Amino acid sequence: MAASEEHLRRALAEKQASVDAQAETVRDLKSRPDARQAEIDAAVEALKALKVEAGAAARRLQAAISSNTDGASASREAFRQAVVNTLERRLFYIPSFKIYRGVAGLYDYGPPGCAVKSNVLAFWRQHFVLEENMLEVDCPCVTPEIVLKASGHVEKFTDLMVKDEKTGMCYRADHLLKDFCKEKLEKDLTLSSEKAAELRHVLAVLDDLSAEELGAKLKEYGITAPDTKNLLSDPYPFNLMFQTSIGPSGLSPGYMRPETAQGIFVNFKDLYYYNGNKLPFAAAQIGQAFRNEISPRQGLLRVREFTLAEIEHFVDPNDKSHPKFGDVAELEFFMFPREEQLAGKSAQPMVLGEAVSKGIVNNETLGYFIGRVYLFLTLLGIDKERLRFRQHLPNEMAHYAADCWDAEIECSYGWIECVGIADRSAYDLRAHSEKSGVPLVAHEKFPEPREVEKLVIVPSKKELGLAFKGNQKMVVEALEAMSEKEALEMKATLESKGEMDFHICTIGKTVSITKKMVSISMEKKKEHQRVFTPSVIEPSFGIGRIIYCLFEHSFYTRPSKAEDEQLNVFSFPPLVAPIKCTVFPLIKSQKFDDVAKIIAKSLTAAGISHIIDITGTSIGKRYARTDEIGVPLAITVDSTTSVTIRERDSKQQIRISIDEVASVVKEVTDGESTWGDVMWRYPTHSALHTEEDE
Amino acid sequence: MAASEEHLRRALAEKQASVDAQAETVRDLKSRPDARQAEIDAAVEALKALKVEAGAAARRLQAAISSNTDGASASREAFRQAVVNTLERRLFYIPSFKIYRGVAGLYDYGPPGCAVKSNVLAFWRQHFVLEENMLEVDCPCVTPEIVLKASGHVEKFTDLMVKDEKTGMCYRADHLLKDFCKEKLEKDLTLSSEKAAELRHVLAVLDDLSAEELGAKLKEYGITAPDTKNLLSDPYPFNLMFQTSIGPSGLSPGYMRPETAQGIFVNFKDLYYYNGNKLPFAAAQIGQAFRNEISPRQGLLRVREFTLAEIEHFVDPNDKSHPKFGDVAELEFFMFPREEQLAGKSAQPMVLGEAVSKGIVNNETLGYFIGRVYLFLTLLGIDKERLRFRQHLPNEMAHYAADCWDAEIECSYGWIECVGIADRSAYDLRAHSEKSGVPLVAHEKFPEPREVEKLVIVPSKKELGLAFKGNQKMVVEALEAMSEKEALEMKATLESKGEMDFHICTIGKTVSITKKMVSISMEKKKEHQRVFTPSVIEPSFGIGRIIYCLFEHSFYTRPSKAEDEQLNVFSFPPLVAPIKCTVFPLIKSQKFDDVAKIIAKSLTAAGISHIIDITGTSIGKRYARTDEIGVPLAITVDSTTSVTIRERDSKQQIRISIDEVASVVKEVTDGESTWGDVMWRYPTHSALHTEEDE
Repeated sequence: MAASEEHLRRALAEKQASVDAQAETVRDLKSRPDARQAEIDAAVEALKALKVEAGAAARRLQAAISSNTDGASASREAFRQAVVNTLERRLFYIPSFKIYRGVAGLYDYGPPGCAVKSNVLAFWRQHFVLEENMLEVDCPCVTPEIVLKASGHVEKFTDLMVKDEKTGMCYRADHLLKDFCKEKLEKDLTLSSEKAAELRHVLAVLDDLSAEELGAKLKEYGITAPDTKNLLSDPYPFNLMFQTSIGPSGLSPGYMRPETAQGIFVNFKDLYYYNGNKLPFAAAQIGQAFRNEISPRQGLLRVREFTLAEIEHFVDPNDKSHPKFGDVAELEFFMFPREEQLAGKSAQPMVLGEAVSKGIVNNETLGYFIGRVYLFLTLLGIDKERLRFRQHLPNEMAHYAADCWDAEIECSYGWIECVGIADRSAYDLRAHSEKSGVPLVAHEKFPEPREVEKLVIVPSKKELGLAFKGNQKMVVEALEAMSEKEALEMKATLESKGEMDFHICTIGKTVSITKKMVSISMEKKKEHQRVFTPSVIEPSFGIGRIIYCLFEHSFYTRPSKAEDEQLNVFSFPPLVAPIKCTVFPLIKSQKFDDVAKIIAKSLTAAGISHIIDITGTSIGKRYARTDEIGVPLAITVDSTTSVTIRERDSKQQIRISIDEVASVVKEVTDGESTWGDVMWRYPTHSALHTEEDE
Repeated sequence: MAASEEHLRRALAEKQASVDAQAETVRDLKSRPDARQAEIDAAVEALKALKVEAGAAARRLQAAISSNTDGASASREAFRQAVVNTLERRLFYIPSFKIYRGVAGLYDYGPPGCAVKSNVLAFWRQHFVLEENMLEVDCPCVTPEIVLKASGHVEKFTDLMVKDEKTGMCYRADHLLKDFCKEKLEKDLTLSSEKAAELRHVLAVLDDLSAEELGAKLKEYGITAPDTKNLLSDPYPFNLMFQTSIGPSGLSPGYMRPETAQGIFVNFKDLYYYNGNKLPFAAAQIGQAFRNEISPRQGLLRVREFTLAEIEHFVDPNDKSHPKFGDVAELEFFMFPREEQLAGKSAQPMVLGEAVSKGIVNNETLGYFIGRVYLFLTLLGIDKERLRFRQHLPNEMAHYAADCWDAEIECSYGWIECVGIADRSAYDLRAHSEKSGVPLVAHEKFPEPREVEKLVIVPSKKELGLAFKGNQKMVVEALEAMSEKEALEMKATLESKGEMDFHICTIGKTVSITKKMVSISMEKKKEHQRVFTPSVIEPSFGIGRIIYCLFEHSFYTRPSKAEDEQLNVFSFPPLVAPIKCTVFPLIKSQKFDDVAKIIAKSLTAAGISHIIDITGTSIGKRYARTDEIGVPLAITVDSTTSVTIRERDSKQQIRISIDEVASVVKEVTDGESTWGDVMWRYPTHSALHTEEDE
């Protein structure tokens, strides 16, 4: 396998070199004032094609590396089952519309899940919106078609689908091929080594196959509908947006938004004005997004409706520095740059400041957000060791993107993309400017007006109309689209010879242009400002995915006191714990119940969510019950003057007077003090009741 | 006019008396163990019809009363324009997708609006969910058809629509008729008094007209399409839900939910279990809801997508007392019971405890929520004088509802329903039990098992099959559906005569039943528990409407210092203010800017949202700018050791040292102290700069 890896690695390095060379060509062309648009477009197309090839090569290598390391999957599966069982039993989430047998890919958050979610969102607002003075907006989910045509979603937000030719049942084409290959590789012992290599290759390039290629593979392997074994249709693109109709006429198609970002882009002009016409600034939005998956899998990770939290940070493309970058530059965490992936290495700890200064991360602003995302996730309780920032490979990234990093969290499903942090350059604002006709631009006022020479091309529509009739418009456009160099050449030729041959791409003809058909001149103009389309840096958070990974990272089991069963614990930090504190009267007694009520009232007044458990169950069982939903502190009422507070993970207890209890709980759950801080201030407690019962 | 009012009032009283009598009949029937279902159904139908008549009578009276009082409408309009202009200019809200010329009925919250909204929702969670230990859930917007069939939305969530027969343009039929009548009454000076009376009558009964009646009126008055004058189609019901399709097959219709409540009802079983199988408990949900209005009007009050916050409080129908009712019983506010409305009176202050004890409000739990809603709205800043709780009239209330009150807030559009508080009895849970086949019930365990006699009817399917062939099933059902009285009569007859004639409604025939076809007996059984469907009390909050009314109630203007213009102010309480505090360096100076940054940092650390305004504009202009978005406190940096804090409404200022400033701002904006409380602790300030500039 090592030899094969080596071979794949070399192939990849070659591809990568061609990508780099072509990228250089594109940059060159773009910087040349005389480059023609058609030339640039062709070069960009070539670059895209090379990127696809390089990506495929990278995947082939990844597949070769990972095919040897499937060992731990059974224990992962068992761990996930334990987590998911606990989550479902304790109503962290519930399959939606369960009494009607549910709908795939739709889940409700039950009470503890909903509380975790609202804590995560409140912290997100605090950590990003408030801390950075972002402009938060709240736009509708229902979106008219024109907006999503401009953004490209109507055309491109698709997956390839096949249909059971008899029942009409639908499947994702790539899933069927993937399942077939995996099963063959795992279970068919008669498989020749050539065939095995072929199937591995298919798995490696799966994401890059066209509809035709996928269809051909399905036919070649005789893959049929999994449920019925019927024949399948050819693969065709299925748009993943939920479609609807706005208003009663049926004539205004609309969609449920697939992301919240577009609501921000279309408001750029107003938000820029609101910010005093100054850059940089960031807008943010939290809201529902929708994705009509063909066949949802992976439980809570791939759902049809989910909460996104998105930031669009608008910045001058000429200056992507960030004044607060210094605050995060010293952070060190796992980063997985493109080169390391292509070299088959794994993610390594890296100091963020160095990653930016070495040019691994494209710019300071992108780096600043990577650092802030790292802080956000780890403060929530995501394990640092199972968090990495992975740079997009060439084929993953849109051609307009300057750089893109995903915060990936490792869980039982593997490494999951939870936050995407992309420098999308000016793409989105330009797309909406073009479609709407409203310029979405920023202005930089010059301290002094600057004198510039500007090319002015004025085609004579009348003359061109007489000469070219129906083609007049195309000729006018071609003349206006000339680069400075071309125009000045034409000017010279027309002045010397009176006419000139001119090729019009759009009609595929060469025509003769005469002097009276066009006037070309260089004029001096005073410019008072620079007008430009801002770049946008977009951190986009899949809140449900983050929460699911948090569940897995927080879950552990420990034996009960009697060692006869395993007890489940969610070790949520107080910040995200669904309930901060429980109150237990030790035994059924009016006296203790009254004290519990007094304490509950003081907790409510302090804004601390809590529950009272007055069931007569043993205190050990009651502790186990709240440990299982991750309540950090439990107050046991065993006297009318003082009570004990027990910490969930250490099981340590302190004794504390009744009037102090709410303020101490608040101190710990607000994060002002740690449990360690308060421990030493109060007598520890080790009463018999807890020893006996737990 | 007084005479006509008197006449209408008497007519209404008569109708109301028949409603009451019929309601009594229904109650009677339901309580009789021997009443047949068909008999009950017929009585309920009759009750419904009477309610519709009574409602129409009530509207006629209302219209007669209000037709004399249109005076203030012009100044209302001007006030609204001033508020709306300020809201739009300062981006409290933005018509959605504005650069694409927008979509009627869709609005974005811009930065200050979004902040107000998130403050309102945070307070809602604190005031209801946390304070009452409610079970909050979070369900998807995409909802499969079966759920909304069970709830009745697929069949009944409609408005009557007409189409322009040529262009296909759609209108709400009642709006066209209303506009026509209003315009005639206002502008046609030649109108005879009979005709005027007729038009007023139409306006009064508008909401009760059937499709046929509406269509006939449109034809009679020759009403055509307003934009084209083309002929109109007959009115037909248009379902107001946004329809979509779940999954790729196109075979699973779904809708965007029209309310959040259904997500709670379908989870009743799990939530009841989560609550330890105990009643009462409340579940709550905040989320988006959708309503595809035919032609949205009234700006922010009637939109196609909006945020609802709903509570479903499940309670034993035999015990609707509330342990915390005492906390709200003393509250006194405007209530508008049914009787007062029917008597043409206006809302009067009433003590809540009395309203419940006198039976005006149906039960304590309903009363408790009315009180809590009152506190919620007034703490947000809704004016007590423009808030009333109006009881539903007979025709407004569903036949299953026990009682229903709306919190109505007066704004420039009139009295607007912002919160509905309804006792919906067992309707919703029963509907989902029936449709899903999953019992949504609660259990009351008896301390001792109770011995009861139970009727047992066992039809012999074999004998009935031989005798009635294809009709066997209907006969079995009819036998099983017999009341106790009927069954015992049959038992006696069969024992004495051996056979008996029996009418089967479902096949419209009388058949002869013999002794061997059915066994009827009374058996003694031990019952350990009572099984019942809980009643649900539902407070439902239209968050957007509350916020809009809050905007109007908080808005005022005052002259600038120079008295040359009117300045706008939103007097939001700190609780809802979008930004709590602004920081202004008095003059452009590095020294002051540095102090401002230090203060900003301490505000961020204290979790206080704020903005720094370092534009060189005059301090008076900067004050005006933040008053206009309702910022309660402004800090002016005019030295490096101390600063001034100015309160928005009083314009009073105090001087305070830099290290204390964040804690004082926090004290006031968290509501721990009022401005009055802190005023006397610090020296007041009346420096020249503010006097000069404001």
